[in-house]
Amino acid sequence: MARVVVDVMLKPEILDPQGKAVQGALPRLGFDGVLDVRQGKRFELEVEGEVTAERLAEIEKIAETLLANPVIEDFTVHVEDAS
Amino acid sequence: MARVVVDVMLKPEILDPQGKAVQGALPRLGFDGVLDVRQGKRFELEVEGEVTAERLAEIEKIAETLLANPVIEDFTVHVEDAS
Repeated sequence: MARVVVDVMLKPEILDPQGKAVQGALPRLGFDGVLDVRQGKRFELEVEGEVTAERLAEIEKIAETLLANPVIEDFTVHVEDAS
Repeated sequence: MARVVVDVMLKPEILDPQGKAVQGALPRLGFDGVLDVRQGKRFELEVEGEVTAERLAEIEKIAETLLANPVIEDFTVHVEDAS
């Protein structure tokens, strides 16, 4: 069994109100030096068997159609340590 | 400037209905072989200057108090490529 991680983040040109809210809260809580915060989603998929190139292509397809909205979001797919 | 990433995931023993919804949708869309899906949050923090051990400890504190709920969530902090 292997774990594949899909990270989905808003494109840089899309406003991120959640991230901005966190960023605005930091100085009030006494944390300085953080210039920008962006919030996105992380999906961990447990995949049967080995992660072949074919399987990875399928997961790219899943990410594109189900996990991310490609109009406003970018995603990256990577394999994590097998468990 | 450096980028620090905080990944927040529900603890394994906490039910994850969002992940289950994705998992349930996959076979209907023709994707098989994904045994489990967990959904979490990813925060990208742009930090001023270099990421020292002190600065990293501060971000751990931010993650613990503001980004994650340690009762039900685990988080990991790691530095990404400087940009």
